[in-house]
This record gives sequence, structure tokens and C-alpha cells, in this order.
Amino acid sequence: MEITTQQKRFWSPLVRELEPYVPGEQPKIQNLLKLNTNENPYPPSPKVVEAVQAVIANQADVLKLYPDPDASLLKQAIAKQQGVAVENVFVGNGSDEVLAHIFKAFFVQDKPLLYPDISYSFYPVYSQFFGLNTIEIPLTDSFEIAVEDYRQANGGLNGGIIITNPNAPTGRAIDIDQIKQLLNDHPDSVVVIDEAYVDFGAESAVSLVAEFENLVVCQTTSKSRSLAGLRVGYAIAQPHLITALESVKNSFNSYPIDRFALACAVASFEDQPYFEAQCEKVIASREQLIAEMQTLDFKVLPSKANFIFATHGAVSAAPISQKLREQGVIVRHFNRPRIDNYLRITVGTDEQNQRLIDSLKTIL
Amino acid sequence: MEITTQQKRFWSPLVRELEPYVPGEQPKIQNLLKLNTNENPYPPSPKVVEAVQAVIANQADVLKLYPDPDASLLKQAIAKQQGVAVENVFVGNGSDEVLAHIFKAFFVQDKPLLYPDISYSFYPVYSQFFGLNTIEIPLTDSFEIAVEDYRQANGGLNGGIIITNPNAPTGRAIDIDQIKQLLNDHPDSVVVIDEAYVDFGAESAVSLVAEFENLVVCQTTSKSRSLAGLRVGYAIAQPHLITALESVKNSFNSYPIDRFALACAVASFEDQPYFEAQCEKVIASREQLIAEMQTLDFKVLPSKANFIFATHGAVSAAPISQKLREQGVIVRHFNRPRIDNYLRITVGTDEQNQRLIDSLKTIL
Repeated sequence: MEITTQQKRFWSPLVRELEPYVPGEQPKIQNLLKLNTNENPYPPSPKVVEAVQAVIANQADVLKLYPDPDASLLKQAIAKQQGVAVENVFVGNGSDEVLAHIFKAFFVQDKPLLYPDISYSFYPVYSQFFGLNTIEIPLTDSFEIAVEDYRQANGGLNGGIIITNPNAPTGRAIDIDQIKQLLNDHPDSVVVIDEAYVDFGAESAVSLVAEFENLVVCQTTSKSRSLAGLRVGYAIAQPHLITALESVKNSFNSYPIDRFALACAVASFEDQPYFEAQCEKVIASREQLIAEMQTLDFKVLPSKANFIFATHGAVSAAPISQKLREQGVIVRHFNRPRIDNYLRITVGTDEQNQRLIDSLKTIL
Repeated sequence: MEITTQQKRFWSPLVRELEPYVPGEQPKIQNLLKLNTNENPYPPSPKVVEAVQAVIANQADVLKLYPDPDASLLKQAIAKQQGVAVENVFVGNGSDEVLAHIFKAFFVQDKPLLYPDISYSFYPVYSQFFGLNTIEIPLTDSFEIAVEDYRQANGGLNGGIIITNPNAPTGRAIDIDQIKQLLNDHPDSVVVIDEAYVDFGAESAVSLVAEFENLVVCQTTSKSRSLAGLRVGYAIAQPHLITALESVKNSFNSYPIDRFALACAVASFEDQPYFEAQCEKVIASREQLIAEMQTLDFKVLPSKANFIFATHGAVSAAPISQKLREQGVIVRHFNRPRIDNYLRITVGTDEQNQRLIDSLKTIL
């Protein structure tokens, strides 16, 4: 829509310049194979359905009442599953909201925020939204995060660091010793490890929370718990950092998580065996998919996520993406420097992955 | 929790000063009569339960997928019910989130925001959160909004106006001509009419949206639609203002409304007869409650909301509130200048209101 300068006088000056995040599309196409937004191919735990039935008992009468603004039961369930105390847990309306509050709570200051040049593309959006200075630290040529590069940046001065581990869209993970190095190198900066994909084979930094007063770990129920439709994310950190997040949250929206989201997420965290089984299935399918892609002359980065990042030896990524789309298979192609010849492909069920491979065979 | 100065070095400077909003408590007491957070005493439309059943069909399989980031079906349902176009509708995770985005989209500028001295107590919180200059405009001695006072403030210069209509916690409404006056007096300012309680007898400003390019109307499903547990709020305005809100929203959280909230809210908007019947019941109960309170020597402000604001002729509000609590009846008492001798009491069912009256009789 065309907005006139005259109409824009109503907008806050900063808002006139915003370049919002563009989520992976949610196309409404029949017989679509949707491998573009890293959703889980399996449904959530059956316990989730039972939890919902409880909410809607008695004509959903309980919906007339506000949810618990502190989400106490959910924090308890997360704390138990993660092996931390309730005071170490913050929850939000999806990990995107949790990340937004993290930016506001810790990164709004003069010193620059550091993050990888190739990473979750919402970080630059938040940075603009909150008016931050930033420095993008290039991944290595093999698309790895080199933690020593963060110490060099800006003469060692920064106002925070955020990295995704495993990284997106690359899928590569760094190990816990490298995260420890990062935390030790920057004792006066908050270091955020965004672990949206950690349950598919990487090592979580939650085990370091007790030791490091500058660590925030962020996770989500959207991927490994098959609850993208629900919007529940969370952060784990020491209480002095959680308190800042609560202060931000309670200055923005008192009740961000509705009664369904609370009930379903609790049910999911209480069904650990189902969770582990689904993660194992995705991991096994990923390894099989990588092997098959390699036989088709794709170079695939080692992945610890529920997606792979792949480039073909002969054919460019953009036309492959376009031709897959013509066959009803949607993958994600980022038209950005360094990665514009790569495709990010969500790991589906074995059947879905076979359909992808079959489609690729007709294209290549 | 005690946070040390040393620990606070991790917090953004502005966050160290925040004074967050305090929502009405959600006590976990048996046989409680909860008349403190203006929830509806009736359950939501039976269509809501059907909508939820559809979401959890097939082991809630659809929950593995992200919800529609644009909430298209919900915007359509709201547009139809409100008699506006889809391009006039913005939706958020409760009207608190919608208000937060409104503040960011329109009010972050040098000129001061104006709002009544007695109004929704989240406005000062947002103002601090976004670093705004503000001027509180006193209500008249009879707790009315006098729109001409807004023209006088700061020599006629302001960066926006927000009022609640009917106002909270007073319950008093201004009529549409006064809102028109406000809009005409401030053609270069965004004027927000927060209509959280409008469905209980006040006149909505939505009818003015086509005429005024500076008007934003904000409503919620939490009160009149009995969906406080769901978190769906919305704004109605001309497209150039909606575009700013979308830009803010998409720089903060792409998917703020989950699949249950979308489905339930759509079902509610599609059941207009149920909605109207419940509002009429609450209005009738309110008038009866006011009459009974008056016989107990309460002075009650004229209310167009689902709550009343009352002061007793002889006994102070604070001890009444305390003694009601001892009987399991929770009402809201604000310990703030001008209104510390008033109680804000949510209108319940006739039976609930009778229990309140019976309790008051034992106290007074």
C-alpha cells in the first residue's frame, strides 16, 4: 500500500525506517510439501489433546478468566525438565517475543551488539527496532562460528553477544567448550545462546547457567515439541537476569500466554519419552536425507538441527528452489551474500524426504 | 529478590528504572467471588468449544505448524462484525500488546502524550517503557473527561492522545460528539480511543474511522466476549495507521496469535446473537447492582462498563475492601490520589452480586 508523506507524519520517526522480519511463507496450496519453516513433521504429544479437553470442559467456562500472568505451572514444568529452579525460567509468547524482551532488557546501550553475519535474520530487525549499534562477525569460510573473533571486535568492547546454536540457516553447532570460552572472554556482557534447534543433536548451554552470571539460554516449543502453532518460548538464566526480563515483560503485556498455550506446553514438558522419541526420529531421517542429497551431488553442511543447508555442485540454488515449488515442494532460499547458492531444507518424515529426493531427481 | 548493583550492570540502563504494571491479582482461594479484574461472569459462545475441537482433531496435528502470521481469517471476522474493511483491522496478543504497539508506532516522539490523570494504569507504564514525555490531564471533579482541556495542554502541542471510553476505573463514558471534537481539535495527532468496555452500553468510535485519518480505536475480546483466557485484542483505523502497526508487529513477533486464539476468536465474532445476549444480561445486572448499592449509602458513578466505581457515605474504601476479602469477595482498591476512597467492582451474575450485597450488609 502507498503511504503518503503527509500520512506518515502520524508515525513515530523510527517506525518510518523499519524493515520488518519476513517469516517463511505459509502457502495455501493443496498437496504441498512444506519444508521451508523448520516445523516438526510429527504431531505433539497425545497428552496435549487431553490438556486441551480440560480447558474446554464446561463450555470452556475457564476462558472467561485471565490466565496466570506468571505462568507458574509452566515455569515449574520447564524447570523440572531442564533441571533448574523456577527462578531460572522466563516464558514468552514464542521465542521471538522472548528474544525481543532479551534485546530490550540487556542490549539497549551504547556499546555494539555482536552476532554472526549469517544467523537468524530477526537479529538485525530487533537491532533496528531497538536502535542498537551492531557489528556482524563473519562466519569462517566453512560457515563456522569462531568464538575468538568476538574478542577482537571493537577493541574488545561490546554491549552483548547473541548466537544461534546450532546456527540457522547453516545447521552447524559449536561445542560447549567454545561457549564457555565466549562466556569467559566477555564477563561484563550478556551472552545469549539461542537454542531453537538444540534438541536435534547439539549440546545445550543450560548446564552452564549455574556457573555463568552473564549467560541467557533461549529455547522454544515450536520445533522439537511440535508446538509451532502454540507460541511458547522460554529463557533460562540466573535470577538477576530473569528479573530484568520480567520487568520488561510486565511493562509490555501482563498476560502474554493464553490458557491453551499454558496447558499444552505443560503437557508437552511432562511427556519426556514422546519428546525424545520424536527427536530421535528426526535425527535419523536427517542423516538419511543428507546421504541421499550427497549422492545427488549436493554438498551438505554437517547439521545438528531439523534442517539441512545444501548447495549443488552444478546447478544454482535459486532455479532448484523455483522448480521444486512448481512441484509443490517449498524450501527456503535466502537471496543474501555468501548463502545465495544454498537451500535450507526442513527435515520431514522419511516419506516426505523421499518425495523431495524424487523431485530433485527430475530437476537435476 | 535483591539484585546487586554489580548484577544490574547487565541490564539496559532504562530497564533499571522501570516500574512495571501490576495486574489485578488472580488468587487461588476456594469459593472465591472474584470481582477485581472485570472478567465476564458468563462463559464464551458454545461455538468456541466447537472451534477448539477442530484444532485438536487428529492428535492436534495442526499444532506442529505455525499459525497464519497475518491472522487473515480473524481479521475478516472482526471486519465483518465491525462493518469495516480487512485493511482497517490490526490484531494482537491481547489489547495490552495492541496498546504497546500503538505506543511504539505513534507516540515515540518529542512532543508529549496526553491522557487522563485517572485512567488505565498501564498508560504511564508504557510511557516510561518507551521513554515518552507525558502530560496527565485531570478529570473534572465529577470524574469526567473534558475534551476541551486537551486543547489547552502544552500550548496545544502534543504527540498523541489516548483515552479509555468508557473510562477505567470510573466507568464513565463520553459521547461520540466529544470524541469528534477531540479528533477535530488535534488533526496532526493520533487519537486513540481504548474501548475495552464499550460493549456494555457506550457508543463506539469505530463509526468515525472512515472520516478521521488520525483515529485509532482499540477493543478486546477479554471482557464482552468472555475470552480473557485467550488474549486477543484488536485496533480499527485507516490503512496508513494499520500499516505502521503491522510494521512494528513484524519487527517484534511474527506470529503473536496462536491457533487456538485464532479459532476461538473467529468463532466468537461469528456468534453475534450470543454476544449481544450476554452483554444485555451484564447491563441489566449492573443497573440492579447500582440500585442496591445506593440503598446501602454508596455513591456510584454512572457506569457504561461491566464494573462500577463506588464510594461509601460513611465508611472508607480500604477497610471495606479488606473486610470483603475476609469473606472471600475480592474487589479492586487503588491506593492512588483522588480515588483512594473508591472501590472498583466487577459486575457479576445476579447471584454473585447478591452475595456481594449480603457481604456488604454484614460489614457496614
